[in-house]
Parts: sequence; C-alpha cells; structure tokens
Amino acid sequence: MATIKDVAKHAGVSVATVSRVLNGSPQTRPGTVSLVKQAMVTLGYRPNAAARTLVSKKSLTIGVVVADVSDPFFGTLVKQVDTIAHYRGHQLLIGNGYHDAVREKQAIESLIQNQVGALIVHSKALDDDTLRAYAQELPAMVFINRLIEGLEDRCVYLDNYRGAYLATEHLIQQGHHHIAYIGSDHHIEDTRQRQQGYLDALTVHHLEKPNNGDDTQSSMAFAPPDEQGGETAINALLSRNQKVSAIFCYNDGMAVGVITALTDKGYHVPEDVSVIGFDDSLVARYLHPKLSTVRYPIAEMATEAAEIAISRLLHSETPAKNGRYQPILIKRDSVRNVDRSKP
Amino acid sequence: MATIKDVAKHAGVSVATVSRVLNGSPQTRPGTVSLVKQAMVTLGYRPNAAARTLVSKKSLTIGVVVADVSDPFFGTLVKQVDTIAHYRGHQLLIGNGYHDAVREKQAIESLIQNQVGALIVHSKALDDDTLRAYAQELPAMVFINRLIEGLEDRCVYLDNYRGAYLATEHLIQQGHHHIAYIGSDHHIEDTRQRQQGYLDALTVHHLEKPNNGDDTQSSMAFAPPDEQGGETAINALLSRNQKVSAIFCYNDGMAVGVITALTDKGYHVPEDVSVIGFDDSLVARYLHPKLSTVRYPIAEMATEAAEIAISRLLHSETPAKNGRYQPILIKRDSVRNVDRSKP
Repeated sequence: MATIKDVAKHAGVSVATVSRVLNGSPQTRPGTVSLVKQAMVTLGYRPNAAARTLVSKKSLTIGVVVADVSDPFFGTLVKQVDTIAHYRGHQLLIGNGYHDAVREKQAIESLIQNQVGALIVHSKALDDDTLRAYAQELPAMVFINRLIEGLEDRCVYLDNYRGAYLATEHLIQQGHHHIAYIGSDHHIEDTRQRQQGYLDALTVHHLEKPNNGDDTQSSMAFAPPDEQGGETAINALLSRNQKVSAIFCYNDGMAVGVITALTDKGYHVPEDVSVIGFDDSLVARYLHPKLSTVRYPIAEMATEAAEIAISRLLHSETPAKNGRYQPILIKRDSVRNVDRSKP
Repeated sequence: MATIKDVAKHAGVSVATVSRVLNGSPQTRPGTVSLVKQAMVTLGYRPNAAARTLVSKKSLTIGVVVADVSDPFFGTLVKQVDTIAHYRGHQLLIGNGYHDAVREKQAIESLIQNQVGALIVHSKALDDDTLRAYAQELPAMVFINRLIEGLEDRCVYLDNYRGAYLATEHLIQQGHHHIAYIGSDHHIEDTRQRQQGYLDALTVHHLEKPNNGDDTQSSMAFAPPDEQGGETAINALLSRNQKVSAIFCYNDGMAVGVITALTDKGYHVPEDVSVIGFDDSLVARYLHPKLSTVRYPIAEMATEAAEIAISRLLHSETPAKNGRYQPILIKRDSVRNVDRSKP
C-alpha cells in the first residue's frame, strides 16, 4: 500500500505539502494540488482516517451505543442513525451495552478511544453522573430514551409512563376489569415507568391492583423482554390461576411470546384473552391477530438524535428540537370489547 | 483532556517513554511503567486509538459489512461477530451495503480508511475481482455467504441451492403438485441459486414447471425480500388465478407477509395452502401456524467468520475450518400432507 511519503516522492513535493492537500488547506497552489492528486491516483494511495483524525481533529466517524443490535427495536435505531450519518458523509461505529453498566462503559470508552466525533447513546445502566462526565468530555454526545438533568438539550426520549397508562386505560375502556401485566425483568427506568403507568391507570379507574406483596397471588409476572420471556412470564401467570381477561405487555416481543403460549394452550386471542403490546415493531402488523399496541416512534427519535449530534459536532450548537416524544395508541385486532353496554 | 505530553511531564519522562509504556514495549523498566501509569490515572489520560493504530500498526477494531443491520438476519450476524470481537478485546465498526455496488464499496473503503484490522464482509453486489483486490490489501478480510475462487480459505457460505431443493422436495413429498415460488427481486446470487433449487426439484420429480416466459401465467412472483414484499408477491400470484396448493418462499420474512395476506383473504394455512420459508429466523417459531422452514445457521457461520478474521489478523493464518455449511429442513405446522395414500 502506498504511503504519504511515496506520494510526496512521486509528485516531487514535501510530505507536509501532501498533508496540506489532504486537509484542503487554502495555502496550496492549484498546480500542486493537481500534481499531488495525480500521484495519489497513480499509486492507489488511500488517505488514512486515523492519521486524518489526528491532523484535522474532526472525526468523520459517529458512534452509537445500543443495548443489542440484533433486537429489531435497536436495529431500527441504528439504521436511522446510519442513514443520516451516511447522508452527511460520516461512517458509523456501533457498540452494544446489553443494559449492563460495565459493558455500557466499555462500549462508550472504546468508541471515544476510536475518536468518534459524535456519539448517540442508549444507556440504561449507567448513572446520571457518569453520563454527565462523558458528556462534558464529548460535546457532541446525545442521549436517546433518557432524560438527564442539565443535559435536556441533548436528550431525545419517550414518555414511557404515559404509553403504559394509555394501553391499560384502553383495556379498561373496552370493559376489562382483570388486567395482568407482563413486565421486563431488566432493572432499568423503562421497566419502572411502564409498571407505574399500568398501576396508576388501575387506581384512577378504581380497579383492583395486583397483589404486589405475595408473588403467588400477583397478576404481574416478569421475565427478559423478548419472545421467550413473554412465554416464560405468561406460563408463570397461568400457573397462579388468576382471573384475567386482558394483558398489557412490556413490549411487542413479549406480546408475541404471550400470544404464542396462549394459542398453544388452546386459548383464543382476543376471544378469551385480550393482549396489548408496546413499541409497534414491524412484527406487530404481521401477527395473527394483528397486535394492538403503543407506538414508540424510535425511527423519528433516532433521526432527531443523529441530527442533534452532527449539528453539535459541526456547528457546536443544538438545533431547535422536539426532545420529548409522546406515545400513540394503535388499535388493531388483539383487544376485544367485553362491555355489553357498548356496541 | 490530558495529552501524552501532559503524562510525560507529570511522570518526568520523555514522550517516547510514555509511548513505549502504552505499547507494552519490553524495553521499559518496571519503575518507569508504574510511574507513567500513575500519571495516567492522576490526569485521567485516555490512550487515543487512532494514535495507537498509527504506532502499533495493529488495529483493535474489526469491521463488518452487511446489507442492512435492521434486518434480523443481519442483526444476528453482527451480534455474533460482536460477541467474538468483544471476547477478544476488539471493538466493532459496522457498515451497511444495502446489496448495492456503490454502497458496498463505500462501506468497505470507509472501514479500511478507519484502519480496521480485520473485516467480515457480506457483499452481494460487488464482483469477484473487486473483492479479490480488497482481499489482497487486507489479509484479515473474510467473506460470509459467498464463495470466491482463489479465496476459498476465507469464505464461509451456505449451499443456498440445496436449501431451496430440500424445501421444494419436502412439499412434493407431502403430496403437493402445484407449487409456487415467492422470490426476492434482488439481483444477487442467492436469488438465482434458490430459484434453481426450486426448479430442479420440480424437474427431478416430473412436475410441471412454472411458465417462465409468460409472466401472467407464471407460478413465480418476485418482490423485495421482506414482509411487505411477501404480501405484494402473493397478491400478484393470486390475481393470476393459479391452481396452487403450496408455496416456497425465498425467506421467512416473505413467508410472514404471504401468510398474513392469505389469512386476510380468508385462506387457512396449512389447510388451504401450505407455506415453507427459508432462514429459520426467530419469528418462524412465533408465527401462527409455526413456520416450516430451512435453517440458515447464520449465528454459527458468523462466529466462524469472526474467528478466521481474528486469527488471520493476529497469527496470519486460517484455522482449520468448515467453510461450506449445509441447510437443514425444519418441519413445523405450516405444511400439510395432502397425499391420501400416506397417513
């Protein structure tokens, strides 16, 4: 592979001149520029991003940290950031944090060491102080699905509490009085917020709350937030012989597992049990029955986070932005109206 | 942020000495090492990966190019590579190529410019010669889902033809005589190989082949290889009034769209129409009915590709390996036996 020295020798100029051409310095004469560029083409010279980063101090690489890129929710997030990054001529560097403090930290540190110019972070395990320290170090660091005091203009987040409240209230309005919750066992704020939204909707509508103290009597069950977790949690719930006519699930992945397990056991959704999810992932529309859910506009939010990050990188400013997103109820076929007084 | 100069000054040594400590040079005295490390901790110095890459010439970053990280198939591939990379202390850099020659080239070039030490590439749009040229430049470049002459020891691939043959033959063995094919409209070799496997299975079993010449009479339909594409293609097929009792789909995503569209129109799967997919993606097990399909062991293949790439990067050698993978038929509930002579 040709080096910058080979190019300089071939063009009959100094290495410093080649470097100036590479960095688009106005101090180079047009004749020299074309001479150097010709030499680069002839020798098949490829400028080295590491060297350019050191020289220009502005990285073309953008980092993104998510929990797990193989989860379609995060896949969508990463794809949107990639679309914006590519459009603006940046390359993407991805790290997985797996909702684990040590792994999240490793992913962020590793991306900073790789000289990313901007960083979009979906962190759930690290505390606010740790993230504030990183944010101070990297001015173009933006947070998605998180609100950090003092960094409001760098946060793009969803009202998780309201989404859960909306979903539960929809089930209540369809005449359901015994509503179970299939929750995530990840100890992150989304878990707490969605559970609280569910509980508050029950309280406001004077419905019996699940027995929190006694696990064997509770109409809440927890497992990893994916298809298999949904199966595990619904099986735990069924073994308690609860009287349940509707289930609010932490996310669509769990709802898929819940519906599969119920169907395997001979229950019909929504005739016997109504099910509502959270996210409005692609799979929601292709389930049978089509899944009623709460829309998490992750694609729009990822786009905004990327725009803010790049704007902060290039212009050191945050554009006028939305920040806080609202969830929307999506009614499909997995919830049945059991209220006889209504049509 | 503290620089290497600050560290040198604080420790009372030269920059070259700090650099030697950073690169683990055996020429440094233990006393000096601990002095320098202490200074780094005190100043919060973080070694710069770009600078380290320039000095050590061995990058800690591994690149991976896939078509689209938001597709669960590629999400699984990337996650496996990430798992291996993380285990071995490498960071991952991801590029999307979207099955487009220009984008694939940009992704590969950009990763090479970012000094990845090894590169795992799922390229379908670039020709063999172009990839051979890149492979010569980067000895730790490995190809997944592709066989390139002369680079056999760096290729991990699946027998797509055989997978399609197996799926179609399974439908024939279950008594089906009128078998349609829902194919991908991407012009890549997988498309051709799977279609050929389908056609050859029909020929070997003396079944009528789809009318290739006249599109309005054909029992093959093509669309983008995802859920929506499956819907589009099955609707095109249905409009032709073909007598079809079973459908082989290019992948599970298309099969999901096919089953949803059929169900929406009042058909029952598998009672009215049998459907078989390709990939054995996560969704296959959670569909209703559970999807019969062909297993594409992408997780195992990605693991092997990552191991080969890292081994070539660190030891300049290819470990003993499998290379060519065989697809396996997975029988679930979406195919019905219509042969009355069999139980």
